[in-house]
Amino acid sequence: MNLDFKYNSDGLIPAIVQQRGRVLMMAWMNRESLRKTLETGVMHYWSRSRQKLWLKGETSGHTQKVSAWFVDCDKDALLFEVEQESGACHTGYGSCFFQPLDRQGEPLKITEEKLFDPEAVYK
Amino acid sequence: MNLDFKYNSDGLIPAIVQQRGRVLMMAWMNRESLRKTLETGVMHYWSRSRQKLWLKGETSGHTQKVSAWFVDCDKDALLFEVEQESGACHTGYGSCFFQPLDRQGEPLKITEEKLFDPEAVYK
Repeated sequence: MNLDFKYNSDGLIPAIVQQRGRVLMMAWMNRESLRKTLETGVMHYWSRSRQKLWLKGETSGHTQKVSAWFVDCDKDALLFEVEQESGACHTGYGSCFFQPLDRQGEPLKITEEKLFDPEAVYK
Repeated sequence: MNLDFKYNSDGLIPAIVQQRGRVLMMAWMNRESLRKTLETGVMHYWSRSRQKLWLKGETSGHTQKVSAWFVDCDKDALLFEVEQESGACHTGYGSCFFQPLDRQGEPLKITEEKLFDPEAVYK
């Protein structure tokens, strides 16, 4: 397996995840999580807060099946096209980027609806 | 201006840039580049290689006009919707993520065509 990308000083590379033209989230991968992702076909990350391998959806069931992936021109960022089970965000929204901002950096009205109730999912 | 996001230990936050559902690139911003972006309406980054403020398109003319922007649930990543002049990638492609990979991490055939000749633009 060829995983020779440019990882940062912590051994991590950013992974942008999209579904049908919508960016769902950005998270970090190390070589192990990338290998796991390619072997299993579902997204695995490195959790920086928990300092461990993280199968996305391991608690919620909201897994992400990889359909295609790309590396950028500098080999220091990855882009994954996925099929997302339910919503990607732990808050219940489809995308973690649900909060629009105005030109002053102040929050605008959130226009999308939650896809699930996080209290029911992460109980 | 409210720029109170979670910057990393270098004072940087990742910025994902998309146009009409296509991810064009990922780069890094500091507070100064974010302020410049919001004040001018065109994307400014922090160049980690050159360690300076970077107006995207300052050499090539391939600027990115901001139409909307979003912060993620953790406040540690930003997403910008832009109108890209010509192509985003310095190689001539529309997106920096032009290289698809297979399940072994090996490059697949690039299916898109270059939008400009980098030798003519960056002469």
